[in-house]
Amino acid sequence: MKGNGPGLIDVLLAAQAGRPLMILGMMSGTSVDGIDAALCRIAPRKDAPDRLHAETVFLVDEPIPDVLRQRIFEVFHNGPGSLEIATGLGLAVGRAYATAAAEALKYSEQQGSWEDRPSAVAVHGQTLWHSPPPGPWPGTFQCIDPSVIADMTGLTVVGDFRRADMAAGGQGAPLVPFYDWNQYSHPEETRAILNIGGIANITVLPAGRGLEAVTGFDTGPGNVLMDLLAQRFMGKPCDHNGAAAHQGQIIPQLLNSWMQMDYFHRQPPKSTGREVMGMAQLEQCVALINRHPVSDFLATAAEWTAQTIAWALRDYVPQAPQVRQILVAGGGALNAPLLQRIERCCGEAGLPQIQVQPVGGHLEVKAREAAAFAMIGYATLAGRPGNVPAATGADRSMILGTISPPGYRFPSR
Amino acid sequence: MKGNGPGLIDVLLAAQAGRPLMILGMMSGTSVDGIDAALCRIAPRKDAPDRLHAETVFLVDEPIPDVLRQRIFEVFHNGPGSLEIATGLGLAVGRAYATAAAEALKYSEQQGSWEDRPSAVAVHGQTLWHSPPPGPWPGTFQCIDPSVIADMTGLTVVGDFRRADMAAGGQGAPLVPFYDWNQYSHPEETRAILNIGGIANITVLPAGRGLEAVTGFDTGPGNVLMDLLAQRFMGKPCDHNGAAAHQGQIIPQLLNSWMQMDYFHRQPPKSTGREVMGMAQLEQCVALINRHPVSDFLATAAEWTAQTIAWALRDYVPQAPQVRQILVAGGGALNAPLLQRIERCCGEAGLPQIQVQPVGGHLEVKAREAAAFAMIGYATLAGRPGNVPAATGADRSMILGTISPPGYRFPSR
Repeated sequence: MKGNGPGLIDVLLAAQAGRPLMILGMMSGTSVDGIDAALCRIAPRKDAPDRLHAETVFLVDEPIPDVLRQRIFEVFHNGPGSLEIATGLGLAVGRAYATAAAEALKYSEQQGSWEDRPSAVAVHGQTLWHSPPPGPWPGTFQCIDPSVIADMTGLTVVGDFRRADMAAGGQGAPLVPFYDWNQYSHPEETRAILNIGGIANITVLPAGRGLEAVTGFDTGPGNVLMDLLAQRFMGKPCDHNGAAAHQGQIIPQLLNSWMQMDYFHRQPPKSTGREVMGMAQLEQCVALINRHPVSDFLATAAEWTAQTIAWALRDYVPQAPQVRQILVAGGGALNAPLLQRIERCCGEAGLPQIQVQPVGGHLEVKAREAAAFAMIGYATLAGRPGNVPAATGADRSMILGTISPPGYRFPSR
Repeated sequence: MKGNGPGLIDVLLAAQAGRPLMILGMMSGTSVDGIDAALCRIAPRKDAPDRLHAETVFLVDEPIPDVLRQRIFEVFHNGPGSLEIATGLGLAVGRAYATAAAEALKYSEQQGSWEDRPSAVAVHGQTLWHSPPPGPWPGTFQCIDPSVIADMTGLTVVGDFRRADMAAGGQGAPLVPFYDWNQYSHPEETRAILNIGGIANITVLPAGRGLEAVTGFDTGPGNVLMDLLAQRFMGKPCDHNGAAAHQGQIIPQLLNSWMQMDYFHRQPPKSTGREVMGMAQLEQCVALINRHPVSDFLATAAEWTAQTIAWALRDYVPQAPQVRQILVAGGGALNAPLLQRIERCCGEAGLPQIQVQPVGGHLEVKAREAAAFAMIGYATLAGRPGNVPAATGADRSMILGTISPPGYRFPSR
């Protein structure tokens, strides 16, 4: 690819003229299980040019090398030396992203058409720490070196999207509601889109309304505690398809204490992270491991995820009675027992009309977050705002992110 | 300023056409004493268009608020919680830079001419950690939120310059030799430019040669240990004009042990930081404080700085016998006893012809590093490489940095 991609000004002019661009959207979640790279054709909708549309043509899920993964988990503990470790992760995470990008770009090189060649890479990066407001020192640390990706791919790289929203007083998250509204909002149906990654978040799209009516927030835990338990006690990256959790019994004392956390009683906008939604609870489970089988802890963790989602709908989504379907994306969408659990919890929370199902086919389910960053990257290049103030609490619309010019090999002097 | 600055594409097109641009260059050093903001007119030289020229028209030296300064020093210790503290510093450092920028922009607003209006802000940021190669996890952490500066100034922001050089295998430092060559190289004189900040670095500009002949490296300590001693034992930010050091006696055992550090016996390219060139030595001084007056430690620290500079010239600068003048910039240039000390050490190192003097008047001395980042920012916007591979060890020329589009207030929908 080196030196063959379009120049920065060409990409900016094309996006600002509303031309379709192939953008490679990339992200890795708080569960650090892999890097998703979605090659998407992004363009304004012909029937509604203020809305963007993404068509995902290819998805790569590149595992994160073990040594890198361990190092990222090490830094999550925020212990002695964590600044130094975090500093050393930027280049390494950048190289891992560039490796995943190379896989996706190989696909596009095999396509004959010039239009299928990518114009830019849009990267979320790896969240190492996220301290949203309020608090005396709000901040966010999306670890990734964009320069090494620009160099290795020869493409313009857009990234570090959360900061601009926080500069406008927002939580910097969630960002995916921008994509959900552009992609899934419907003139007559009120829809809820639920993403279950390490953390779970929900987006509500009231029927026939604009971006200003979109709300969304982190409901709380997604897969994070289940994954931590599987890693600690089963030697596996996750409880595949929720099989072990499905066989366990809920431990009521644990579940009740977790449900009482302040976070679940705060009004949105709000966002959270794995520090408080998984790592603290793992320690409690470790202390009790001689009293219960591992499957009981997994069942309790799954119920915690499901119940916090249902309660969040009941308590903080005024349109919940109009919602008939929750469309689920992210890794958790492939965990059928978990989706049944959420549906049951919605029923118990007084929302028996709600059906819970994956947002689409395998590609669409898996690509949603990566495709969202491709779309936000397009917005940045086009000079369009990319945040959803109603979801993040920002006081205004902002163009998100920073842009790294494409790597270019200079002739020797 | 909000919304009045030129758009990103306009700035890129102007720079790529070689038009003069006013760029506000900003940096804060490892001594964390303040933020320098230099408003510079940058343009290609008429007589040599492959070289850039900077004319500094205004300089602001904005003190860093105490609470922020203390928090930055806290994170330098890399102790428990350092990742969280570092995360919270990005927005705060960005706001402090934006405050300093506002001072400089006020000046430009008072100028009538449209040409004096700035087009972009180029920020080095605050180095929190720097781990250059070799090593398994090279990386650099320039802490600053560019989005908040873009938002508060309404201007395009360029920053995070070190990463691209490291992506090409370089040390990511020093970057200022790019400016030195553009600004100070001479057809017939071999010149050495010395910057004394927290860390000291030297740039050698062989007579009549191009960028490929420029070498430069960190010689080792600058003011960092002297400042730490003054803060710890005198309750002052620094030993003003080197007055106390001038009255002290050198402690030979300490000096000798410091001179034996591996760093001083390694070939360039090399770069270092305050972690190893000041903080470790402060602890030794603290342990011995009952045996010597503070002025002796200051004298020893000053001699360490001077001797490491002279030895570096003698051992690692083949052109040293041709150098007649060392031109000094940075805070240390205003410390006359320190300059005399360096001149004496050069003589003792077999280089008696060398005279040591400030690089120019007060504005030029103080503005050098901030002006260097204004120039590198222009290079990035113009699509020109901005690193000096011979100085950093990078394997090729690179366009440096990332670009944040100017903040813009969107009309409400």
